[in-house]
Amino acid sequence: MRVDVLAVGTELLLGQIPDTNSAWLGRELAAAGVDSHFHQAVGDNQPRIVLALRTALARSDGVIVCGGLGPTHDDITREAIAEVMNVPLVRDDSLVEGIRALFASRGRTMPESNARQGDVPVGAEVIPQTLGTAPGLVCPVGNKVVYALPGVPYEMYDMFTRAVLPDLRARMASAGGPSTIASRVLKTWGLSESGLSELLAPRVAALDASGGNPTIAFLASGVEGIKVRVTAKGDSHSRVAAMLDAEEKELRALAGDRVFGVDGDTMESVVGGMLEARGLTLATAESLTGGMVSSRLVGVPGASRWFRGSLVAYDSSVKYGLLGLEEGPVVTAEAAMSMAAAVKRLLGADVGLALTGVAGPDPQEGQPPGTVMVGLAMPAGAVPAGAMPAGAGFDQPIESVELTLPGDRERVRQYATISALDLLRRRLLGTQPGCTA
Amino acid sequence: MRVDVLAVGTELLLGQIPDTNSAWLGRELAAAGVDSHFHQAVGDNQPRIVLALRTALARSDGVIVCGGLGPTHDDITREAIAEVMNVPLVRDDSLVEGIRALFASRGRTMPESNARQGDVPVGAEVIPQTLGTAPGLVCPVGNKVVYALPGVPYEMYDMFTRAVLPDLRARMASAGGPSTIASRVLKTWGLSESGLSELLAPRVAALDASGGNPTIAFLASGVEGIKVRVTAKGDSHSRVAAMLDAEEKELRALAGDRVFGVDGDTMESVVGGMLEARGLTLATAESLTGGMVSSRLVGVPGASRWFRGSLVAYDSSVKYGLLGLEEGPVVTAEAAMSMAAAVKRLLGADVGLALTGVAGPDPQEGQPPGTVMVGLAMPAGAVPAGAMPAGAGFDQPIESVELTLPGDRERVRQYATISALDLLRRRLLGTQPGCTA
Repeated sequence: MRVDVLAVGTELLLGQIPDTNSAWLGRELAAAGVDSHFHQAVGDNQPRIVLALRTALARSDGVIVCGGLGPTHDDITREAIAEVMNVPLVRDDSLVEGIRALFASRGRTMPESNARQGDVPVGAEVIPQTLGTAPGLVCPVGNKVVYALPGVPYEMYDMFTRAVLPDLRARMASAGGPSTIASRVLKTWGLSESGLSELLAPRVAALDASGGNPTIAFLASGVEGIKVRVTAKGDSHSRVAAMLDAEEKELRALAGDRVFGVDGDTMESVVGGMLEARGLTLATAESLTGGMVSSRLVGVPGASRWFRGSLVAYDSSVKYGLLGLEEGPVVTAEAAMSMAAAVKRLLGADVGLALTGVAGPDPQEGQPPGTVMVGLAMPAGAVPAGAMPAGAGFDQPIESVELTLPGDRERVRQYATISALDLLRRRLLGTQPGCTA
Repeated sequence: MRVDVLAVGTELLLGQIPDTNSAWLGRELAAAGVDSHFHQAVGDNQPRIVLALRTALARSDGVIVCGGLGPTHDDITREAIAEVMNVPLVRDDSLVEGIRALFASRGRTMPESNARQGDVPVGAEVIPQTLGTAPGLVCPVGNKVVYALPGVPYEMYDMFTRAVLPDLRARMASAGGPSTIASRVLKTWGLSESGLSELLAPRVAALDASGGNPTIAFLASGVEGIKVRVTAKGDSHSRVAAMLDAEEKELRALAGDRVFGVDGDTMESVVGGMLEARGLTLATAESLTGGMVSSRLVGVPGASRWFRGSLVAYDSSVKYGLLGLEEGPVVTAEAAMSMAAAVKRLLGADVGLALTGVAGPDPQEGQPPGTVMVGLAMPAGAVPAGAMPAGAGFDQPIESVELTLPGDRERVRQYATISALDLLRRRLLGTQPGCTA
């Protein structure tokens, strides 16, 4: 099965927004065992969309079109597909009523232009929306197929996963392809792509030598670390799941605790799960990250069971006042530890995590951008004696770690955030689940 | 002049690296007044590269190919172009000697595989390398042209600027085309894409009727609102800039204060600039957003001039304790106003902005996910008498706004964040720059 990808939108040709959809689809199609030999981008122009669709259908079995399903005059993917199918568009009143109801649920009246989103080429199937207004379409063209999906990434991801992937799998199964392909992603933090690749090289070589099933691919994810995707093919779900389990075990034996989670896990969901399992609550004090750590933690459903809150002490006077730091330099190990201890006490938490440092673009206190101090205060009962250095002058297990981080202001703040969470994760790994403060 | 872009590399199709080259070329071509209607990506496979080149040449006047000029066996762009030109490749010994000398200058011996980089299709011109080993090529195909450039971004940027752009300009001048094209993006908040489209419809119709220069396009940006892109073509930079200025004025007259910025502006950079211009400082109190508001504000360079900090009072006990709210429901207008007033006082700021609400997935205090209260406390001197409702029992200008937001936990939090910042922006718009608390 060969499927082209076609991204629609003049903004893509002009380079005003990056085309992340095509790359995402490329990864997903590859993971599903679907060949994708050509990607195209085209502007909001009907004859050109038609030409691009015909080009794609001439060289592949299907095409996934992203974008151009909105309500405005330049959203013409529906018209272009109908022209390629050589059928008229017919308005589906039930779709329009659904869109009208969505607007009503938000206390708004549907503009009449949105009614266009109910237009369906005769013979096409609708993929219902769950997140926005534009329905998707599955459009047969002879024995080939055009899938039309919205250009908004999260709407596209949802429809691809929910409707396109099962349809592609059914087509491949009826053509006699392998019946099951599945992937698992191991998420790592603390190594470069080449460092991780060297660590796992023996396993990659062994798989290549034994026929390449499962396969392993490395995906750099910037500030979220490096992902290792394992893809296995087999004749049943249970067989494929067993292959993935076995391979995950092999890779974890090589990578150790650098693997912080799998698939949908995030650093913050893993840390939250560990805190909850140990009956501990957390508070954070943030300076350069400005609330980024606490915002990620609050993003985890159920965070109220283990997260109490954060004090964003951005201005130094807030550090001296509410947090009670001694007046003086604030980008120091002592300041980070004092912030951690103070916020733990102030918000009544078991664990205090603090960040102070220089995000840039300018130096601060003579230190260059990227200099970050992380402070961590733990409850005495949760840390084995001697496992954690007690900071001088503090009456509890407390430590600070200095980081030197690359990049601009935004990347320094993001790296600082995940690094601080990873420090807490590693410290919690050394404690027992179920222990209490 | 119409020029396609063709990116070569299997890693692009697999989504393993993002195709930043095509977006960069799209911007450069647009700025140079060259139409680029189709972009393609194709893998390292000769028949498919040939097909993609022929497809591009059939629909445009030229094509810029990036990638596949390296020394390894899967670098076959040279062979594909020679096939399309229907000529043999001939090795240029002087090119090979240049590559050998480059290796020698770095103390290394040239691997013999690099000699392939001296292969040139008969009839093509060489673009000399200045930064790496792969020469570029200018290849005539009938009265059309194929430019071959390396895939390494900085090598590609250099060759495009130094050789391709002057060649394109010469071709356009000899064809008498417009010399300049430029865009400006207006950023809006508070309307759906269709609502904004209806508001601006008279202007879109007027432009269409008068020949379509400038053009207008709508770009939905999810939680960041709707962007309106204006693109103008003309025979000089100053003429195009004047057209963009005039069109921005027309659109602002229709959209009013829903336009919060242009091009690189963000909601938080605009709010920060307004606070600074008025000599005001800000503190925030956040519950469901968990620090997302303050993190965005701290992302603005120079935020320390107007941002003091935030209290993330996620657990209710922190709201009752540090913020001094009366024990009871926390998703209320009163709670939002109390939080705003308390954080303003606690962190010594002029303005207090607070958010409390239900992010989901579960209801809270009998209210459904998406219910959000925003509280805003302003300094008395900064608000014209009567312009802002004084909350009962508060001794300062204070208000609360209830929002009903769509989406999952993450989107509710993001919508709440930008909505709260927009409320502050609108309130500041009603005050005078330069006023002090």
